[in-house]
Amino acid sequence: MAKTSFPLSKVYGLFEPGPVILLSTAGKTRPNVMTMSWQTMLDFEPPLIGCVISDRNHSFKLLQAAKDCVLNIPTAELAEQVVQCGNCSGVRTDKFKKFKLTPAPAKKVSAPLIEECYASVECRVTDTGMVDAYAFFVLQAVKAWVDPQVTAPKTLHHLGYGRFMVAGEIIQTTSKMR
Amino acid sequence: MAKTSFPLSKVYGLFEPGPVILLSTAGKTRPNVMTMSWQTMLDFEPPLIGCVISDRNHSFKLLQAAKDCVLNIPTAELAEQVVQCGNCSGVRTDKFKKFKLTPAPAKKVSAPLIEECYASVECRVTDTGMVDAYAFFVLQAVKAWVDPQVTAPKTLHHLGYGRFMVAGEIIQTTSKMR
Repeated sequence: MAKTSFPLSKVYGLFEPGPVILLSTAGKTRPNVMTMSWQTMLDFEPPLIGCVISDRNHSFKLLQAAKDCVLNIPTAELAEQVVQCGNCSGVRTDKFKKFKLTPAPAKKVSAPLIEECYASVECRVTDTGMVDAYAFFVLQAVKAWVDPQVTAPKTLHHLGYGRFMVAGEIIQTTSKMR
Repeated sequence: MAKTSFPLSKVYGLFEPGPVILLSTAGKTRPNVMTMSWQTMLDFEPPLIGCVISDRNHSFKLLQAAKDCVLNIPTAELAEQVVQCGNCSGVRTDKFKKFKLTPAPAKKVSAPLIEECYASVECRVTDTGMVDAYAFFVLQAVKAWVDPQVTAPKTLHHLGYGRFMVAGEIIQTTSKMR
């Protein structure tokens, strides 16, 4: 995907609809990627995103160590990779290699972008105060990339047990609410 | 909508796909309803949901006072009401009356269910420790209701400025991941 720089002020619109995320992290020996659905916007600008990453996930340790990550948004073509990344651990598996995902260097963080995703948002961990109670990390988006040719991304929305809703039609209501 | 009792263990599947929510609260003179898109699951069982409700919203005060609410999930037929509820304040407007929404008594909380929504989840506020920093409330689902006839709800997913993605097709991958 040929992603170009995307305004931080518009990042909330990527996450508000609730797509499944591929979270990538840097690692000592290799980067890792995990599937995530438990995230929410917390503020518009600078964009803050809160997300749950269980301490049973290898990414939990990597994120604690590197203090940064990339939130990549996959579309329907990647559905099988999305579930495969959610079904095995980066401790034993090089998921980028095994699932044919391509890491690309980020601009502001150590974690890699995932080439195959239509959008990638570089984030720094800014608050770990809720990690003990809820495994809830606060991330600040510091750089965003979107493929400008993808205007109606067929994002994946997890319904449970490997069932996904795929993004359907777009409607414009009379409201201008942000 | 003829909603029936829905297992709390399955509540995460209602919120994981990221639908727009109509949050209803009780009030001294009348109940209120606001539109919300910034929420995430925090735990499976008991189901915990974290959500952002700005202190500029009338619902902020009502939620702080009553310590409970209902998270109602609207479908596409309600798109105009969803944006109208997001564009005015309950201080001056009886939104249930003005937008022809029907309050129905909940079983375990003081806030009303919204009759027209296909799913309604009764919640109690269990943690306000992140409200000062992020307007982030932790809610515990205590009772859930879903219309069993709605198996593929056309939920709304906000893209910004009154544009919504409507839930599209459902795919089943090979994974059983929860």
